Amino acid sequence: MDCRQIAITGTGMYVPPRRVTSSELDQRLGLADGWTAKKTGVLERRYTEGETSSQMGAKAARAALEQAGYELSDIDCIVGVSGTAQQEIPCTAALIQRELGGGGSGIPAFDLNSTCLSFVAGLDTISYLVEAGRYRRVLLVASEIASVGLDWEQKESCTLFGDGAAAAIIERTPAGSASRILAARMETYSKGAHLSEIRGGGTMLHPRLYSETTKADFLFQMDGRGIFRMTSRLIEPFVEKLLSESGLGMDEIDWVIPHQASGMSMRILREKLGVRPERFIMNIANYGNTIATSIPLALHETIATRGIKRGDRVLLLGVSAGLSLGGIVLAY
Amino acid sequence: MDCRQIAITGTGMYVPPRRVTSSELDQRLGLADGWTAKKTGVLERRYTEGETSSQMGAKAARAALEQAGYELSDIDCIVGVSGTAQQEIPCTAALIQRELGGGGSGIPAFDLNSTCLSFVAGLDTISYLVEAGRYRRVLLVASEIASVGLDWEQKESCTLFGDGAAAAIIERTPAGSASRILAARMETYSKGAHLSEIRGGGTMLHPRLYSETTKADFLFQMDGRGIFRMTSRLIEPFVEKLLSESGLGMDEIDWVIPHQASGMSMRILREKLGVRPERFIMNIANYGNTIATSIPLALHETIATRGIKRGDRVLLLGVSAGLSLGGIVLAY
Repeated sequence: MDCRQIAITGTGMYVPPRRVTSSELDQRLGLADGWTAKKTGVLERRYTEGETSSQMGAKAARAALEQAGYELSDIDCIVGVSGTAQQEIPCTAALIQRELGGGGSGIPAFDLNSTCLSFVAGLDTISYLVEAGRYRRVLLVASEIASVGLDWEQKESCTLFGDGAAAAIIERTPAGSASRILAARMETYSKGAHLSEIRGGGTMLHPRLYSETTKADFLFQMDGRGIFRMTSRLIEPFVEKLLSESGLGMDEIDWVIPHQASGMSMRILREKLGVRPERFIMNIANYGNTIATSIPLALHETIATRGIKRGDRVLLLGVSAGLSLGGIVLAY
Repeated sequence: MDCRQIAITGTGMYVPPRRVTSSELDQRLGLADGWTAKKTGVLERRYTEGETSSQMGAKAARAALEQAGYELSDIDCIVGVSGTAQQEIPCTAALIQRELGGGGSGIPAFDLNSTCLSFVAGLDTISYLVEAGRYRRVLLVASEIASVGLDWEQKESCTLFGDGAAAAIIERTPAGSASRILAARMETYSKGAHLSEIRGGGTMLHPRLYSETTKADFLFQMDGRGIFRMTSRLIEPFVEKLLSESGLGMDEIDWVIPHQASGMSMRILREKLGVRPERFIMNIANYGNTIATSIPLALHETIATRGIKRGDRVLLLGVSAGLSLGGIVLAY
């Protein structure tokens, strides 16, 4: 059992003020009233109106710092863990550092990207550096603006997503502390790499190639059925291995915090894994799928409102573009 | 002294066949013959002609696997360490896994991005996971296509860059082995975040905003003088701290492998640090600045052609957009 003595000592979130209800989208898309809410499980989501990803991320980061009672100067590394970037160069973490007023601080800042699983992969990866003492306190920040990249001709996907940011601070705990990471696992099956993607915007299809005929290349495309088929086959053995590495059974997990992919996929996941509804965190109704923000945002709300205690066993779990499966079992 | 028992057990590189000489650029840009070579220190660079970043990365990865005597199935994690991405979603590492024929392998794949320092930050970060036994053998792949994002109205920057890929395999070494990481350090000063950037392409300026009047936003912009001013002040104390953490003096370093930023910046760096020319690796004349590929490509060539021995002390060092400074002292 691989066991890292680290704790999440602060979390924070920020969502932009503009609420977009599912009825509003039904109207915009010419759908029957109620279609979007029923199909996606999302009642409302937020869309930014001019705020940047680093501005949102900095607000979530400040909330996490405040909750933990820290200043930016207490942090010795900032990791951007978003599936989308604010700009091509430089990394979003540097832009967040700047928004936090740390432009002259020297605090190392870089991004780690596994699309919707970026927070999970980031927490997993960086926990080793914290355990080894390389960094005392690391600020992980996910900030996503999904709304700019939606394809309004794909009603199954454009209705799912929302914008938002969430942050977490991790640090090493003294021996004997209940908080730790018990196990983590990631698997990538790139035969599914094109099941959900934005083909353009990078070096393969430069923005200069954007036009009315190519615009779908620059918007999020998703083969929901294909993802469902791949994931159905992979998720149970994945969770079995992860739990086995943690030494725990599913009945010993106090809280399951899944990626808020879609209402239906989460319902199926919950039933497959046999998790009681009151232990399975769903906030997709309020925010939609916020890409990599989704898991830390749900974690923040669970901590803030659900009476989670230190030592409670938490399973973070998700599927991302790639196609990747990722999960962490931790004692909070 | 923070000491990680890991070794680089294989390296590989790939550059596309099309050579672009500096004379060709002089002509294209209407410059006096010799201007580009003199100003940049680059005699030629490569430009892709239709190859993708993941195709180039897979070729470099295959070369590294072959050199180390491994198959893909010997690798248990793939980390994309480029400053540019092939497409917005998913991460480039997943696309490289697919090109390597590992689409059904489940090998975890994610990206880590600190622009030109992505390889250095990736090697630094992932070495902790390898040391801890989380992964036995990790494949780090940098693959960059700079040529699609150059601003041909900025002759100082567009003449500097080239395309290429490089890969390295790292794994844990037995106790007593000479190979290890002796020290690593990163500092980010985001007051310099906009000194070199591509403002567009992410969520702030979506490709749909590309036009003749906005096109500079989607191309690489660089304030060379501003970078030089910031870096001049920061580099010496940075290197001093890094060396002090490694327990070595500059005279005990056998090979300095700098980011191949520009001929002039490297000459100034070498003189500032007092490194003998024969120990200071420069291949910018042949490839230009290949973003994050530049350091692992120079490392590969040093291993292949310069008679580097196991245990030799190597300093990897660079400055990236962000603005970040990064370095690693390792015993090869």
